[in-house]
Amino acid sequence: MSLRKAGQDSHGQDSSYFLGWQEYEKNPYHPIQNPMGIIQMGLAENQLSFDLLKLWLRRNPDIVGLKKNGASLFRELALFQDYHGLPALKNELVEFMEKTRGSEMKFAPEKLVLTAGATPANEILVFCLADPGEAFILPTPYYPGFNRDLKWRTGVEIVPMQCSSSNGFRITSSALEQAYQQAQKMNLNVKGVLVTNPSNPLGITMTRSELNHLVDFAIHKNIHIVSDEIYSGTVFASPKFVSITGVLKERNSDNNIWNRIHIVYSLSKDLGIPGFRVGMIYSNNERVVSAATKMSSFGLVSSQTQYLVANLLMDKKFTSKYMEETQRRLKRRKEMLVCGLRNAGIQCLKSNAGLFCWVDMRHLLTSATFEAEKELWIKILYHVGLNISPGSSFHCCEPGWFRLCFANMSEDTLKVAMQRMKAFTHSTTFLLKAS
Amino acid sequence: MSLRKAGQDSHGQDSSYFLGWQEYEKNPYHPIQNPMGIIQMGLAENQLSFDLLKLWLRRNPDIVGLKKNGASLFRELALFQDYHGLPALKNELVEFMEKTRGSEMKFAPEKLVLTAGATPANEILVFCLADPGEAFILPTPYYPGFNRDLKWRTGVEIVPMQCSSSNGFRITSSALEQAYQQAQKMNLNVKGVLVTNPSNPLGITMTRSELNHLVDFAIHKNIHIVSDEIYSGTVFASPKFVSITGVLKERNSDNNIWNRIHIVYSLSKDLGIPGFRVGMIYSNNERVVSAATKMSSFGLVSSQTQYLVANLLMDKKFTSKYMEETQRRLKRRKEMLVCGLRNAGIQCLKSNAGLFCWVDMRHLLTSATFEAEKELWIKILYHVGLNISPGSSFHCCEPGWFRLCFANMSEDTLKVAMQRMKAFTHSTTFLLKAS
Repeated sequence: MSLRKAGQDSHGQDSSYFLGWQEYEKNPYHPIQNPMGIIQMGLAENQLSFDLLKLWLRRNPDIVGLKKNGASLFRELALFQDYHGLPALKNELVEFMEKTRGSEMKFAPEKLVLTAGATPANEILVFCLADPGEAFILPTPYYPGFNRDLKWRTGVEIVPMQCSSSNGFRITSSALEQAYQQAQKMNLNVKGVLVTNPSNPLGITMTRSELNHLVDFAIHKNIHIVSDEIYSGTVFASPKFVSITGVLKERNSDNNIWNRIHIVYSLSKDLGIPGFRVGMIYSNNERVVSAATKMSSFGLVSSQTQYLVANLLMDKKFTSKYMEETQRRLKRRKEMLVCGLRNAGIQCLKSNAGLFCWVDMRHLLTSATFEAEKELWIKILYHVGLNISPGSSFHCCEPGWFRLCFANMSEDTLKVAMQRMKAFTHSTTFLLKAS
Repeated sequence: MSLRKAGQDSHGQDSSYFLGWQEYEKNPYHPIQNPMGIIQMGLAENQLSFDLLKLWLRRNPDIVGLKKNGASLFRELALFQDYHGLPALKNELVEFMEKTRGSEMKFAPEKLVLTAGATPANEILVFCLADPGEAFILPTPYYPGFNRDLKWRTGVEIVPMQCSSSNGFRITSSALEQAYQQAQKMNLNVKGVLVTNPSNPLGITMTRSELNHLVDFAIHKNIHIVSDEIYSGTVFASPKFVSITGVLKERNSDNNIWNRIHIVYSLSKDLGIPGFRVGMIYSNNERVVSAATKMSSFGLVSSQTQYLVANLLMDKKFTSKYMEETQRRLKRRKEMLVCGLRNAGIQCLKSNAGLFCWVDMRHLLTSATFEAEKELWIKILYHVGLNISPGSSFHCCEPGWFRLCFANMSEDTLKVAMQRMKAFTHSTTFLLKAS
């Protein structure tokens, strides 16, 4: 990549992301010191269960101190840079994945590749599966960072697949086919579809029917599926999470399609530890696993962190309780948000997962355009004091949808945010009616 | 990259690397349990000062426990994933770099980009500076991993520059020019030269004269210099280490050339902590720093590790003593190796840095060919029981040179290795003379 190109390319986020962030940094809300400040609702962080993690750390000083049975493991860990990762960590990670995906699923540690977070995991898969100029189909709305993660250094293109509110933004066979046709018109060779399940920004898990459409499509077109499941542990309400691997198992699929299914996972969302950079690829495809393992050299997980996380996950009693409690807290928060918005006359897409809701503010737009969406976003940022994320950031094809995060603040702060929204919509609805 | 290509591409190492490693793993030396086993001399690890690091950790349980003044920083660190890195760590890293480069050099933290080790640092620089099909010149012998790090995912080519024993493998203007002409013949657009200073595998620091040749060449051709200085803290004898930045400062160079000089550094060798994945890029070029910072998302350093290392480096009294003591120990080890080999009738290139010596075994070859080099290597692996690295792995153009590491084992093991070499050469020399 030439410097010129590198210099011009963005972080993969749109300008609203930067503006919102900047304004928040200049004027962050604080209940006492800055009660009129901006409340950050654009951050998909899981901050609800740090008390549990801190308690575990307090009870396990030896692990944190890089010891085992009182003896220091510092030397061994300081030297450990095998790109196959600590076997203990991989064993625990596959068991953790199995648990979230129902006990009938079996995952094998030798099919797992450790990466420094989900960001390199997604990029590595694209490097493995596509050549520059080839393409991946992504259902919209999708995580803005994918423009950077999937395209920037690989030279691979994204073909957006349009999903709309008419069916709750669900993936359909016809929409997949339409995106494929679109790619062909653009002379792009489609190598796969990448989905997030549960979806960021929708906060919903994919249905069996959607997953079957996807698998049928991948079989029919002879392409790959990358299933980014980094929110799989946040599913707090029914229906339960169904991974693409669960559907393959039910279908008794043959190796031909198993070899074209690749999962991305990370502990950043489920455990709320993005700073620790623990991500992974899981694939049945030996060649992908082999190439991805070599590529993981470009972003290995610190052995200090591998050791800590391996031991945390080994404590099954803790992780079970932690996951259960986190999901309970997420559910409560989500209900607070939905209820608060309802009081403000705003509906959310019915959701069961994630750290955010997908919020319908179409009735607050002055016109059904992305200009009006931006106008509303600016108003909410400066006049209401909430930094939320407009649907256009997620390449949504319908103006008026926004993503609001609920797990990166205290309950009291969320209440203040909801009061502000109520005050705002009451005045706006009045103005819209009057005009 | 297609799977086909990904599957075929190697780890960047040649087959001798894998064979040597495999044989060592099957039959590793142990003084009591396996005294006839293979001694690993192919690993550039600095294992000499773990006692000092362990002592520091024991004295700083709060830091290891992610605390500050008794209060837990776990929450803040778990959430911290800013690709600009912990300011405290960057401040300490630039001071640490300044120290190694002489106190007159000033480094600025905002010109530093953190990466998960030197591996992604080198790849990121190539992504930033060259397009697929463009080239970097590398003086031979060079680190075998560069084939993977610089070429694999970037699509950039390496043009080897021939250095020979006739001048102690030093870089000359004419050799640089010759490599450049060679690239032009191959229709490759040269974007820069990448050097390791101190050199891996030579174990020597570059002279002011070599550095000036290099800078003249970069100015004349209007290209970049990447200076990989990951061994800069291992310089244990005079002449002192001179960084490319020191030479630029002496020349009163203008911004035009300053903007085309980029340093790679890491703590893996100097502190012996490769498992912790702390690497970095230092550049005066704002566009490179900006693009590289964004790319560092693909390999961020764990915040847990950032915090530990920042605090370790903050303890200036400790780091000064640590560096002094480590260099003293490295020097002693190097002298043991040189002396042991001399007793076996083998000379080393005179060295002053690194964790290895560059060893001349040309007189032990049955012919001056790479086949004979491999034959000798196999003999030393299986009959002498030493896993060393043949020069061909490093793309050396003269057969008969080998890299022997001395800092990844105990003194006693090194003595055993030297005794074995002596026994071997005495029998071999006898056989060669007799034949």
